[in-house]
Amino acid sequence: MNKQNIAKESTKLVANWKALHRTFIRLEDGAARATLVKYMEQILFGLHDFLQEHVGITEEISLKALSERYKNTKISENPERKLADVITNLIRGIAPNAVNVASPYFVGHMTSAIPFFMVHLKTIVAALNQNVVKLETSKVVSIIEKQILAKVHRLIFDNSESFYNKHVQNTETTLGCFVEGGTTANLTALWVARNSLLAPRDGFGGVEKEGISAAFREYGIERAVILVSRMGHYSLRKAAGILGIGSRNIIAIDVDEKHRTDMTMLEKTISEINKDSKTGIISVVGIAGSTETGSVDPLSNIAELCAENGIHFHVDAAWGGPILMSAAYRHLLNGIKYADSVTIDGHKQFYMPMSCGMVYFKNPEIMNTVSYHAKYVNRPGSVDLGIKSLAGSREANSLILDSALKIMGTKGYALLIDHGIETAKKFAAEIIKRPFFQLVTPPELNILTYRICPSRFRTELAANIDANRKNQINKTLNAINRTVQQIQRETGNSFVSRTTLNPRNIPEEETVVLRCVVMNPMTDIKILNEILDEQEKIYKSRFKPDA
Amino acid sequence: MNKQNIAKESTKLVANWKALHRTFIRLEDGAARATLVKYMEQILFGLHDFLQEHVGITEEISLKALSERYKNTKISENPERKLADVITNLIRGIAPNAVNVASPYFVGHMTSAIPFFMVHLKTIVAALNQNVVKLETSKVVSIIEKQILAKVHRLIFDNSESFYNKHVQNTETTLGCFVEGGTTANLTALWVARNSLLAPRDGFGGVEKEGISAAFREYGIERAVILVSRMGHYSLRKAAGILGIGSRNIIAIDVDEKHRTDMTMLEKTISEINKDSKTGIISVVGIAGSTETGSVDPLSNIAELCAENGIHFHVDAAWGGPILMSAAYRHLLNGIKYADSVTIDGHKQFYMPMSCGMVYFKNPEIMNTVSYHAKYVNRPGSVDLGIKSLAGSREANSLILDSALKIMGTKGYALLIDHGIETAKKFAAEIIKRPFFQLVTPPELNILTYRICPSRFRTELAANIDANRKNQINKTLNAINRTVQQIQRETGNSFVSRTTLNPRNIPEEETVVLRCVVMNPMTDIKILNEILDEQEKIYKSRFKPDA
Repeated sequence: MNKQNIAKESTKLVANWKALHRTFIRLEDGAARATLVKYMEQILFGLHDFLQEHVGITEEISLKALSERYKNTKISENPERKLADVITNLIRGIAPNAVNVASPYFVGHMTSAIPFFMVHLKTIVAALNQNVVKLETSKVVSIIEKQILAKVHRLIFDNSESFYNKHVQNTETTLGCFVEGGTTANLTALWVARNSLLAPRDGFGGVEKEGISAAFREYGIERAVILVSRMGHYSLRKAAGILGIGSRNIIAIDVDEKHRTDMTMLEKTISEINKDSKTGIISVVGIAGSTETGSVDPLSNIAELCAENGIHFHVDAAWGGPILMSAAYRHLLNGIKYADSVTIDGHKQFYMPMSCGMVYFKNPEIMNTVSYHAKYVNRPGSVDLGIKSLAGSREANSLILDSALKIMGTKGYALLIDHGIETAKKFAAEIIKRPFFQLVTPPELNILTYRICPSRFRTELAANIDANRKNQINKTLNAINRTVQQIQRETGNSFVSRTTLNPRNIPEEETVVLRCVVMNPMTDIKILNEILDEQEKIYKSRFKPDA
Repeated sequence: MNKQNIAKESTKLVANWKALHRTFIRLEDGAARATLVKYMEQILFGLHDFLQEHVGITEEISLKALSERYKNTKISENPERKLADVITNLIRGIAPNAVNVASPYFVGHMTSAIPFFMVHLKTIVAALNQNVVKLETSKVVSIIEKQILAKVHRLIFDNSESFYNKHVQNTETTLGCFVEGGTTANLTALWVARNSLLAPRDGFGGVEKEGISAAFREYGIERAVILVSRMGHYSLRKAAGILGIGSRNIIAIDVDEKHRTDMTMLEKTISEINKDSKTGIISVVGIAGSTETGSVDPLSNIAELCAENGIHFHVDAAWGGPILMSAAYRHLLNGIKYADSVTIDGHKQFYMPMSCGMVYFKNPEIMNTVSYHAKYVNRPGSVDLGIKSLAGSREANSLILDSALKIMGTKGYALLIDHGIETAKKFAAEIIKRPFFQLVTPPELNILTYRICPSRFRTELAANIDANRKNQINKTLNAINRTVQQIQRETGNSFVSRTTLNPRNIPEEETVVLRCVVMNPMTDIKILNEILDEQEKIYKSRFKPDA
């Protein structure tokens, strides 16, 4: 064996019982402890310092080039790397090609910076490694989850003290459930609504037990539908597909000029369906903060209509829910307390780490329609939270929300929420001021859309030109906005997203818009102006408007 | 204002923009950094040290007394506590009443100790806070997820190098998906199987779009079923309920003396269903490590039968999947490569923190049956992983598994797996040796069940007594085992779970058994003997057998 081989041999990593066994114990001696802390320090600050050097949102490397690096599909038999090297590689090799969602210049999606203590809280949850599916693997954490569910339920529904005293630790009733995210929350709400509409009755076991086809026969219907405005999140279509209702049976209701459910259209649709005895309505969904425009539906009006017609009223407040903590803006969600079920995301405006959703129910008994038991856990009448949840095993996200609310208070959260809404308003004013841009949807909450629309196009559009020419201009603008957004994203200094709307103020079919979500407290009007400047610059260099 | 009030006033916490804003920035100066590290140190070692003092699994406090402490349902307006106090309270106030699942004496469930580096990896995932629903909030992490999915796919299906080269970074195809846990994995697999059976065809949009009722009409059936042995996990019933098939349409197949699907019964059931043209079979599910007994179905035989009948073959390997990494025991899963879909949990025998599941598909195109798009993300043809997943937003668990496999290698995991299986075998031998206990199901993997059955009962049962007396004794034994398990759990030094089986070697109806899962590398035969000793002691003190 030559020297080189010996050197190679001595650094070769081998799987070793003693070393492995040791990783299951927090070591006692000072040196070993210091090493673990050193790794944590690297994680806490290494990432930060690295991103200080590389201010961009992501490194300039094409997806294709990047994916070439990750093509080996064999798991190594022996260890490939030591922990220290894995951590270093995550920080130096992987992080720069991940997306710096914490950057104040990243204003395109509902993912943003989180307070540093959230990372600490997530670490505690991982270290405790409780499994909330059952009391036997969580004990006090199941109890805390029930408490925090009651607290947020109270924020939404504002029932009496005695109502909450009765239900907060009641093992028979359920005020809500922690889930993976907004999609699972919407799915859970519609699952419950489906089972409530097609419930068990004399000689019939209910849709959950017997299936959709048998339930339709029993109830004499041929179709079940869910009504939501065309701003509804795509998770609703997915939920209808999964639940066996069929994604095409999500009926899209038109919206008014503020992108809110058009009440006349909703009323008309319900009354038409009611004439047809072969169609059942599982739910009407109201939106409190639509994904694309942040618009909020007239929740009180929808609630009234649902009550009159005995329809389950679900509110998708995945985005907007936490606005209830802001004294200045909670009125925007008026009527949410009349909902039968409400979706709220933890990883959105509760600023929790990925991923955490929640679903709440007005009626503490309604989740009985989705309960399951097993012989070895989740016995009837136990506190086991897994009895009434879509998921089985799941992590203790409730500990994070509970702690965060203690650290922040509703007023702390309100500071973040108010900052977002007010900064978005300032940004809208700035867009209006600039002749180069057109505001498409003003921010009702902290989301707005706009587009690049240089003045020569705007002048022409304002003139009395024919529809053909209008459409032609619109197509050109769509192409411009698509291109500028893409170049800006790939350059990596800042990021706004884009989507397609059919706004009333732009009568053409499909309008490509730029979408801005202001949730990062470090995002201010100065930064937003820089983003506009960059877009103008990209446009000018790319489209040579004077050529 | 008196002195006391002044003191109170000065310590009152208020929500404050400057302080809050600061929590979004990793601070630059040494003192602030030191504080953050100090908190992490507290989290890493405070918990450990505390649990060293309190060796038990959980503190002795009744559920009722505990829940009395968590009844306040108002969220505080102002901050209630500083971060430091929240952390201290989590360690000193909450952890002792959580469950010490990391204790080697906790052998009752599939939740256990995890290597400490898993906590570091989870912290990195939280600090990066990527959202894998779309490339724009994850970039390289989506690419790494595709790579690790290919690696585990290869471990299961062992296809050719060229197959993996073609699919590893292919944006059109999908080898699997990270999900919340085993339940969502099973649900996703059956969702895909349902949509494949009731697929779109001329003039029909498919079950996903049109719903179950329309699909049944189109395909001329009245019922769709899923076949699995009666050891199947309850998530399968739940999935059938959610998918609109109906939970009663999970057809339970009887098991052989080793608690494996009885092939004669399965064949018979399939051929009977085939005679009835009004029933469709969505899937046959094989189990690779049943929750209650760890038994593994004859996967090759089921695969063959499914292939002959053109039925989707799903394998629930939530527990057993990682055994494929053990050279000594992977043969126990022979036939898994013929599955159409496979569930594996990350938080079980991959020793990842709560919660992480995965589902894999043999056919890289089959997940097209569950794809959804939106205008602002997940556009067709993009790398956005959210196009084909039940969840929307989700965290980057793939980074944890990828890193863990680099640190451990398959051989490292094999050490853990072999230890579990071999320790369970030793434990079974010990139970057989003790006249006080009866081994009910020997460990095929690392799970076994047994019961307390003092020799006087066993002698009587072995004699030729009538069925009535046998049942009477069995009832007495059931009561004894229930009580001893409960007292042991509540005492808090050790924990085995209990379930109810209908084993062939005990012909009576329902047999309460004690269930032991050996996955903690610190659990050895000495500890397991102590657990048996404690059970014997509890029995003797409680039932006074000599009185």
